[in-house]
Amino acid sequence: MGKVYLVGAGPGDPELISLKAYRLIQEADVVLVDNLVLGVKKLIPEGRKVIDIGKTAKEHKLSQDGINMLMVELSEQYDKVVRLKGGDPYIFGRGGEEAVFLREHGVDFDVVPGITSAVAAPAYFYIPLTYRGISSSLTIITGHEMEEKEEIDSINWEAIANLKGTLVILMGVGNLAKNVDKLLKHGLHAETPVAVVEKGFTEDARIVVGTLGNIVEVAAKEKVKPPAVIVVGDVVNVREKLVLHPEK
Amino acid sequence: MGKVYLVGAGPGDPELISLKAYRLIQEADVVLVDNLVLGVKKLIPEGRKVIDIGKTAKEHKLSQDGINMLMVELSEQYDKVVRLKGGDPYIFGRGGEEAVFLREHGVDFDVVPGITSAVAAPAYFYIPLTYRGISSSLTIITGHEMEEKEEIDSINWEAIANLKGTLVILMGVGNLAKNVDKLLKHGLHAETPVAVVEKGFTEDARIVVGTLGNIVEVAAKEKVKPPAVIVVGDVVNVREKLVLHPEK
Repeated sequence: MGKVYLVGAGPGDPELISLKAYRLIQEADVVLVDNLVLGVKKLIPEGRKVIDIGKTAKEHKLSQDGINMLMVELSEQYDKVVRLKGGDPYIFGRGGEEAVFLREHGVDFDVVPGITSAVAAPAYFYIPLTYRGISSSLTIITGHEMEEKEEIDSINWEAIANLKGTLVILMGVGNLAKNVDKLLKHGLHAETPVAVVEKGFTEDARIVVGTLGNIVEVAAKEKVKPPAVIVVGDVVNVREKLVLHPEK
Repeated sequence: MGKVYLVGAGPGDPELISLKAYRLIQEADVVLVDNLVLGVKKLIPEGRKVIDIGKTAKEHKLSQDGINMLMVELSEQYDKVVRLKGGDPYIFGRGGEEAVFLREHGVDFDVVPGITSAVAAPAYFYIPLTYRGISSSLTIITGHEMEEKEEIDSINWEAIANLKGTLVILMGVGNLAKNVDKLLKHGLHAETPVAVVEKGFTEDARIVVGTLGNIVEVAAKEKVKPPAVIVVGDVVNVREKLVLHPEK
């Protein structure tokens, strides 16, 4: 029986994966990739077996159960199975569920943390998520625009609004209007700064900045598309002190 | 004028720094280290100029202002100045303040994200910070037991308790009793699972598990010391499904 490595591939820039992730990719017998780790694919040695489980055509996409079973099957054929996951496996990456599945099926595994795009994408555009005197808490949630729409309602938006710290919403572009509405309804000021970082760490990366009051309109006008990281809070304003060229 | 790189050194395991951080360490003319990046020091090439700004004797420790000024001065003498910071520079790492200071003094800089110990230390002990159906939010705060004691009171503990997601407290061992008391007072159940991960990614790393009702007693009995990462929430129980040997 082989071992499965659930490996954080970071936010997209191949240079932001860990030395350990890089080593495991070189040593792997088979590497599983999906759409979230495209930039990292170039680090896989030529001739290595690669399975792309993130094919864009929906009919070819594996379900989560299918991915879980595939990993178990591969562990029976190969010594080292590396499953590359965007960002960090345990930050809204289903890494926990995959690990539990592997353990329940008697498959040895290891989890290698990665740099989450929740932190790195804003950093790339000069937004520090915490800042003394400005934000004393960081909360990360997921907008789930792609699936699990029911979970968005399990979030206590009132508590998030009351926290008044930095809020990061992953996968939240599809539900942007709904999320903004909930924050405003629960007392966040319309002037609260908001940034949407689109396609962080790709050549097409860009940032759109606004407020809770206008970000829905601004994002629509700018045709913002997933994947994107949304930052809500006063730390967005720190960017003004850090940026040299507003259009970076 | 040289450039200053504020580089996330990750949670302590030298293999968990990024390829970019590794490259910058090799290329640096001078490297600034502190007590939070001890394990990473071995990656610095022999003969390279290293400044340790985290000397344990308090009288020799540089203030934050002193560190800021030192970076400016070094940028006037060297082309590449690398300041290694534990975890990620922007997650309670003062990276934002340092970046603003550098910009205000006309010093070119870059920030390289790192893997925060907030995520990696729990992962090392089989705790995924998010898990479908168990936790739909992750909040990170700092207990500030070492400094800035006033800031702990700027946190809205009621909102944090109401969120009922995963809570991670960095640098919270000194104020453990106070923090636990606030969470209980604002409605979190005494049975809420708590884990304290001490010295993550060192040879002395260990985990202490309890509940809000007993963790103060348990931590005192086990003589838990900083640095430690505290996790509060039901995700702590997932560890039971993942761990093979409870004493890992």
